[in-house]
Amino acid sequence: MTFREDGQAALEWAARYLEHVNELPVLARVAPGELTAQLPASPPEQGEPFANVLRDLDELIVPALTNWQHPRFFAYFAVTASEPGILAELLAASLNQVAIVWRASPASTELELRVVDWVRQLLGLPEGWHGHIEDTASTSTLAALIAARHVTGRNVVVCSEHAHSSVEKDARMLGMELRKVPADEELAMRTDGLDLSDVAAVVATVGTTSFASVDPVRDLAERAHAAGAWLHVDAAYAGSSWILEEERWSMDGVELADSLVVNPHKWLLVPMDCSLLWTSRPEEFREAFTLTPEYLRTADDAFALADYGPALGRRFRSLKLWAVLRCYGAEGLRAMHREHIRLARLFADLVEADPDWELAAPLRFSLVVFRRRGSDEENERILERANASGEIFLSHTRLNGRYVLRLAIGNARTTEEDVRLAWEVLNR
Amino acid sequence: MTFREDGQAALEWAARYLEHVNELPVLARVAPGELTAQLPASPPEQGEPFANVLRDLDELIVPALTNWQHPRFFAYFAVTASEPGILAELLAASLNQVAIVWRASPASTELELRVVDWVRQLLGLPEGWHGHIEDTASTSTLAALIAARHVTGRNVVVCSEHAHSSVEKDARMLGMELRKVPADEELAMRTDGLDLSDVAAVVATVGTTSFASVDPVRDLAERAHAAGAWLHVDAAYAGSSWILEEERWSMDGVELADSLVVNPHKWLLVPMDCSLLWTSRPEEFREAFTLTPEYLRTADDAFALADYGPALGRRFRSLKLWAVLRCYGAEGLRAMHREHIRLARLFADLVEADPDWELAAPLRFSLVVFRRRGSDEENERILERANASGEIFLSHTRLNGRYVLRLAIGNARTTEEDVRLAWEVLNR
Repeated sequence: MTFREDGQAALEWAARYLEHVNELPVLARVAPGELTAQLPASPPEQGEPFANVLRDLDELIVPALTNWQHPRFFAYFAVTASEPGILAELLAASLNQVAIVWRASPASTELELRVVDWVRQLLGLPEGWHGHIEDTASTSTLAALIAARHVTGRNVVVCSEHAHSSVEKDARMLGMELRKVPADEELAMRTDGLDLSDVAAVVATVGTTSFASVDPVRDLAERAHAAGAWLHVDAAYAGSSWILEEERWSMDGVELADSLVVNPHKWLLVPMDCSLLWTSRPEEFREAFTLTPEYLRTADDAFALADYGPALGRRFRSLKLWAVLRCYGAEGLRAMHREHIRLARLFADLVEADPDWELAAPLRFSLVVFRRRGSDEENERILERANASGEIFLSHTRLNGRYVLRLAIGNARTTEEDVRLAWEVLNR
Repeated sequence: MTFREDGQAALEWAARYLEHVNELPVLARVAPGELTAQLPASPPEQGEPFANVLRDLDELIVPALTNWQHPRFFAYFAVTASEPGILAELLAASLNQVAIVWRASPASTELELRVVDWVRQLLGLPEGWHGHIEDTASTSTLAALIAARHVTGRNVVVCSEHAHSSVEKDARMLGMELRKVPADEELAMRTDGLDLSDVAAVVATVGTTSFASVDPVRDLAERAHAAGAWLHVDAAYAGSSWILEEERWSMDGVELADSLVVNPHKWLLVPMDCSLLWTSRPEEFREAFTLTPEYLRTADDAFALADYGPALGRRFRSLKLWAVLRCYGAEGLRAMHREHIRLARLFADLVEADPDWELAAPLRFSLVVFRRRGSDEENERILERANASGEIFLSHTRLNGRYVLRLAIGNARTTEEDVRLAWEVLNR
């Protein structure tokens, strides 16, 4: 293999993919098992040129992709792998750091601590918090619950009925009891009559997955702490918006959190996977994970990042976060957030101006939750037809039993034209 | 940013790094905090050209790297990010798949199942096992323990005193009780008098981290199953060697395992991170993680990979494994393993032929555990001097309280000359 030639071909392939992704169907048009049937059942005995991989990428893989880089990807939470982030992943793979302990990769360890602190500053979070990178919010929240159980000696987790499914899954994996609390008409967790006396952790969400609704973090934090419980804030999606002063209304009380997760791979231009986990109680957090006995601790403990989460081996994820922060600057990131929030407002206005449609939940951040006035079946058919068109991809959720549509704006390539086209496709 | 130009510069940077990595010191020559002090305390307000990132990579990051790609990296377990694997990471980042459910990325989901099955075939594992990719062996073993507790309803984990520290950490995170069992003179877990009546999981290791020793898997599997316990096999490092028929002696009994972890990012040319987790009991395994109630299950369940481990969002890791298997073929991988095992034998012969040195543990796979006949302090000084030379990097462990050195061969660029140079440096 000639690295330069094959690399040039791979780079050209990636460049063309990004240039033409808007011409591909957003949602994959394959049936389950269709790709499997086309892939050889057994591995090759002899090696092949890398060009064969690129050929099969075109012929087999691309048709089975749901194109998350497409400007009209509006499902789940839309994301972007930006160019600096992509190239940083090439570099990280080339360096192949395995940061098990500080000396195994001083670069990866110290850059991670530094750039996660850069994000802390950008979001206006308190000084002194310890932050590191996990793969996903599922893992970050898992780590937070482990710390909460360790610190409190209790075994109950409380979250809103609209909290992300990972809270339930994490509690299940840990053998913790989960109590889901009903939400109010603003889709925020109710706090009246909340008994937290036997609770290890309260998980408050800023920007729920279904509706981008916001739990009353300050109230929950005060109640949690009064009862001796840990407060974890899941702001995986919406937390990135705190780079805008005008979005910090949703941050009220977050400074009281014991731990917080925000995912730059969601709305901060970083390719999968990059989930930031901060704690305001690093000493206690670390005690839940470390195998190093007290008497062996040294000044380097802050550098032992494996002591703040489940994995020992850690790849060089900070490189892509660094590249993105450098190449966009705070200014560039703020501009993208403002534009996405403007586009969501614009789409919400189109919905509200049309008597056949309605907003189903308050507009928050860059997520519009809406429905056509009519039956669930009608809305379901509209979504199916729209997604089958290949032109747009939206997902749905249920609110009080009713089928509602979600349009999530979060791809850096999305323009006003794309948003208007989405509205047109839905109205066909 | 112009993706093609910046990409060309990044690719050229990576190519030069790989060409010249053998001229860099293997172990980083920085003090803790040294890089941190050089990095700006705050993020930039304005965006910068990507070229600045590459410049700082040279000036700031490279001096703080421990060079895992160096041919004379012999510490921990030596690894390789091969060229096809590196370029596949560039492609995966460009595609930016977030495989939360099948439809979110049919390509990532189905390619993962297929290529993990390719590895199953290469290693000679039983048909019908369900395999998927986790980030590291810590997470794979965590998932296995979760499944074991779910299936057995018990809370005790048993492993050898030489098992990897992640078993202890995983048990600690889950609130499970860990019992460490002493090893025999071959450094294998003792099984006489083992009472497994209240045990959820027995973790057997094939290729321990300290000595590459091998637990009696068949015996442990039979005892575990007779007692109603789960048998998890940690073959994170050594399992890859089963691509060689002649190394399958260490596989005896693995076909009885309930779960098994093997890491292609260790000894199968795949960049961090890629840990394969198989289970022979996929239905029960899945029940420990899934939130989908029984009555909602469909034929697509095998495609719901998030139901087999902690994370919901999954990146396109299978692409790099696919690229490596395609570009090397079974033949290429076998050739590398044979060469590494030959080089380890060669180094062990040098040790054994010299009356001043001795093997400290039986030679297994590609890991040589040895010491200079003399005091612990003498061995410690030898290692410190050797590592400080920048020419080689070895790590150490303790065996029955004594300080012993480890030479791990696993980098694809390592030649006989490198191994002979290591011997020379140690003898200076």
